[in-house]
Amino acid sequence: MKATFMYGPGDVRVETVPDPVLREPTDAIVRTVLACVCGSDLHPYHSLPPRTSGRPMGHEMIGVVEEVGADVRTLSPGDFVIATFAYQDNTCVFCREGFQTSCVHGGFYGSPDVGGLQAELARIPLADGSLVKVPDADPAALEERTLASLLTLSDVYLTGYHAAHMGRVAPGRTVTVVGDGAVGLSAVLASRQLGAERVILMGRHKDRTDLGVEFGATEVVAERGDDGIARVMELTGGEGSHVVIEAVGLMPALEQSMGIVRPGGIISRVGVPQYDQAPVGRALFYKNATLTGGPAPVRAYIEEALPHVLAGSIDPGRVFDRTLGLDEIARAYAEMDAREALKVLIAP
Amino acid sequence: MKATFMYGPGDVRVETVPDPVLREPTDAIVRTVLACVCGSDLHPYHSLPPRTSGRPMGHEMIGVVEEVGADVRTLSPGDFVIATFAYQDNTCVFCREGFQTSCVHGGFYGSPDVGGLQAELARIPLADGSLVKVPDADPAALEERTLASLLTLSDVYLTGYHAAHMGRVAPGRTVTVVGDGAVGLSAVLASRQLGAERVILMGRHKDRTDLGVEFGATEVVAERGDDGIARVMELTGGEGSHVVIEAVGLMPALEQSMGIVRPGGIISRVGVPQYDQAPVGRALFYKNATLTGGPAPVRAYIEEALPHVLAGSIDPGRVFDRTLGLDEIARAYAEMDAREALKVLIAP
Repeated sequence: MKATFMYGPGDVRVETVPDPVLREPTDAIVRTVLACVCGSDLHPYHSLPPRTSGRPMGHEMIGVVEEVGADVRTLSPGDFVIATFAYQDNTCVFCREGFQTSCVHGGFYGSPDVGGLQAELARIPLADGSLVKVPDADPAALEERTLASLLTLSDVYLTGYHAAHMGRVAPGRTVTVVGDGAVGLSAVLASRQLGAERVILMGRHKDRTDLGVEFGATEVVAERGDDGIARVMELTGGEGSHVVIEAVGLMPALEQSMGIVRPGGIISRVGVPQYDQAPVGRALFYKNATLTGGPAPVRAYIEEALPHVLAGSIDPGRVFDRTLGLDEIARAYAEMDAREALKVLIAP
Repeated sequence: MKATFMYGPGDVRVETVPDPVLREPTDAIVRTVLACVCGSDLHPYHSLPPRTSGRPMGHEMIGVVEEVGADVRTLSPGDFVIATFAYQDNTCVFCREGFQTSCVHGGFYGSPDVGGLQAELARIPLADGSLVKVPDADPAALEERTLASLLTLSDVYLTGYHAAHMGRVAPGRTVTVVGDGAVGLSAVLASRQLGAERVILMGRHKDRTDLGVEFGATEVVAERGDDGIARVMELTGGEGSHVVIEAVGLMPALEQSMGIVRPGGIISRVGVPQYDQAPVGRALFYKNATLTGGPAPVRAYIEEALPHVLAGSIDPGRVFDRTLGLDEIARAYAEMDAREALKVLIAP
């Protein structure tokens, strides 16, 4: 099969490798219908130390089950499934508490042992917990926009949803989303789903913020840094935002979030932090502000979101603005890195 | 009247100054029945740059109203009242949201303009919002233990309560309290009030942790640092604590908290942070842990706690382990600083 590997900064290659095989009785083998490139894939695209064996890439995928191990109970060959971006048993104590990304038996794709999902085929560990069947659906019979939206349940839309959920978005709360990438836009849509009437989107790429407005953003703030803080404070009558969703992961975005969060408010982070130390001592403390968030346990939210996507009442797949073949995936990375593309669908 | 002033590290003096007078029509003048020294008073006791005009000290007090301004509606001379440690109108938008320590018209005691409460008399700004009347009570008719417990509603007990509230302590959650000072012990008591069946208290002063056990701690961990983390992890079956209440304010206590918080858990801080930067980037993020807390809006909790104290069903005043006169307050600071006293009542 063909699969994607990264060898260093900017060096993404598609290679032919042996097809994956069942290793554990809880595994499944899935044939990819659609995969995609994630904003978080761009971090190693900048910083991966050059290496001689490629790192397997990709963690978002919808596909069709080809084969299941002897202990897999809920899936059969032919099932159309969504793979969550991390694998988990969905039965351990942390899974039961709704934090499946901390599953005691789970993990992340992209190790030599567990490959990546930007590939024609994938071995999915703990398949009963890690794959969610799309009921009664045949991918060949679904429109591409529905398929694209189903793929967002693998990561990006439900990462935005997690941000809103951890930020306790609810009717009456003012929400500000920092970042107009695919996760930020997903957070706008999710905040509206959770009842927010007012969603301020901070971003300066007009094509992206335009989609944010279609997703439900009520105001767009293009300014950044102190000017951006001043503008949000002005929009909120000097009070600040109840919820700030930080969908970037860089320190300036966190500082901006700290500047606009209201006393007693919540900063919910879903961009993987590219920092370790943060100035959260007195600055957050004196206004009783909360810092929360982390890798989204999408498994906790997927069943609730699925009917909305199938019914077309939400259309989170609109974050994809182009489609390329697996052979062209290096171009997808380059275009996303250059911000020419928002998020690229990969159709093997 | 006599009042307390700090002139530099270790330099606390009681001086005779003019009696306070009404300045605003919303002020009240209150005669102190009991005041006390706070753990947070010890920070300037170590670090206040020497000065020629003393800084007025104290922010905890129960007393009797002597005089009210023309606009005060809910209080009359003779009322027995509890002063919250910060003053607030209790009507602004942040007060209504339950974060009175961020009141847009409020502030903190101890400025030259607004004196301190370790004094015989005090001017209380925004009296309707800043004083809570103890219904039908005559301080002369109440036992000293009840008076002491009422005084804890000014700050220390409700600061512990705020920590538990922000940490979303509830039945079924494991709570760990880091720090065996008066706030930590109060947090143990409050956690039990909020339904926690299991409360692990981290502290190494046996007389204090003994009181913690009487307040409801189910386990005591005397080890600190990595050994303390290992012990709590062992006690929780390797899972960590749902809620960690950080009642110290120093970096080692935060690091300890980060080591024992469970995936998806909450670290709730109520010790004033003596740091600005903290290592909360990836370390908190990857386990979806939340950092929350701040100065307690005790005004939000006081009415609910008051009947429990008057009925004697909780006895938070047990954190006071000695009583001194106002003239002896320098000794109270010294004894608390030397950890000879846990918390000292001041009876003018």
